[in-house]
Amino acid sequence: MPKISEERKAERREQILAGARRCFSRHGYEGATVARLEEEIGLSRGAIFNYFGSKEDIFLELAWRDSERLIRLWLDEGWEQTLRSIVEEDPEWLGVYFELTRKARTDPEFSRRHEERTQEQLAPGLIEHVRADQQRGALRDDLPPERLAGFVSLVANGVAFQTAYGEPIRNVDALVELVRSAVEPPTA
Amino acid sequence: MPKISEERKAERREQILAGARRCFSRHGYEGATVARLEEEIGLSRGAIFNYFGSKEDIFLELAWRDSERLIRLWLDEGWEQTLRSIVEEDPEWLGVYFELTRKARTDPEFSRRHEERTQEQLAPGLIEHVRADQQRGALRDDLPPERLAGFVSLVANGVAFQTAYGEPIRNVDALVELVRSAVEPPTA
Repeated sequence: MPKISEERKAERREQILAGARRCFSRHGYEGATVARLEEEIGLSRGAIFNYFGSKEDIFLELAWRDSERLIRLWLDEGWEQTLRSIVEEDPEWLGVYFELTRKARTDPEFSRRHEERTQEQLAPGLIEHVRADQQRGALRDDLPPERLAGFVSLVANGVAFQTAYGEPIRNVDALVELVRSAVEPPTA
Repeated sequence: MPKISEERKAERREQILAGARRCFSRHGYEGATVARLEEEIGLSRGAIFNYFGSKEDIFLELAWRDSERLIRLWLDEGWEQTLRSIVEEDPEWLGVYFELTRKARTDPEFSRRHEERTQEQLAPGLIEHVRADQQRGALRDDLPPERLAGFVSLVANGVAFQTAYGEPIRNVDALVELVRSAVEPPTA
């Protein structure tokens, strides 16, 4: 095989991830067969699995990137922008995320790999961020930071669920206002 | 066939629903084959489908009863008890509810039948109840009742999602406190 540059390798990885994401959205996780992945990505199975060990690995990378993007958005622009971003998420892709949920319930190893990466690598920075917001008075401080972060995550999961279910958020401003009343200190 | 009393018929229906619920929890919606339903219910397919037209009908009845029970709980005891009840829901059964979600996404007729019954028969009473709570000062009145009911439903969906996903609510009192701050008027 000809040698290819690191840059070209990185491009290929992105090509595979983008095509796989479209394929999962269209056909679901189980329905995204290797043949369909090849077609949507535009590479042979040999090339695809040269970059990722398995379909599960591709999927975990996509799910992990979603988590990372949302947590980074929270760190950079706050919980409000994070919620607004989920409201605008592609319902088809969220449907795939629910398949992940189902798979995680029945496959502890799959679940462990996903949790390990999201919980251990992403969650601690978020908790620190929430604690800092509490200290400067931007968030209520009568509950531990884990509870506040957990609550916003819970609302985000509810939004994702309803969006995938075809019952999208009708009034995102009202939602943000309600969450604000929950997590910010009462105005004196 | 011998004639059986109305009372006996009602008992049979309950027997079928209880057995089917166990069967769906154990095997999922797709995995609950007619043979498994027969075994778990303890009746032949002929007897079962004498009471319900199809597996889908049995499932819709179970899903509808869940919605009805939760809304009745809200009307009788308030949103707080409703949230607490969902926290204690069987994760396996909630997993089946997610299968319903998936099915509804891909099967508009299934979705329509479920929505028709829950939205049209149950939702209006709930909105009236929220409006009355707003009028007596128990809930904030600067947002329409639909938004408040929708928010609590969204949180409930988040709870159900996380419970099924194996990430159950660790501190239900903190959750209730946060939702209270969101939906109740600020204390003067």
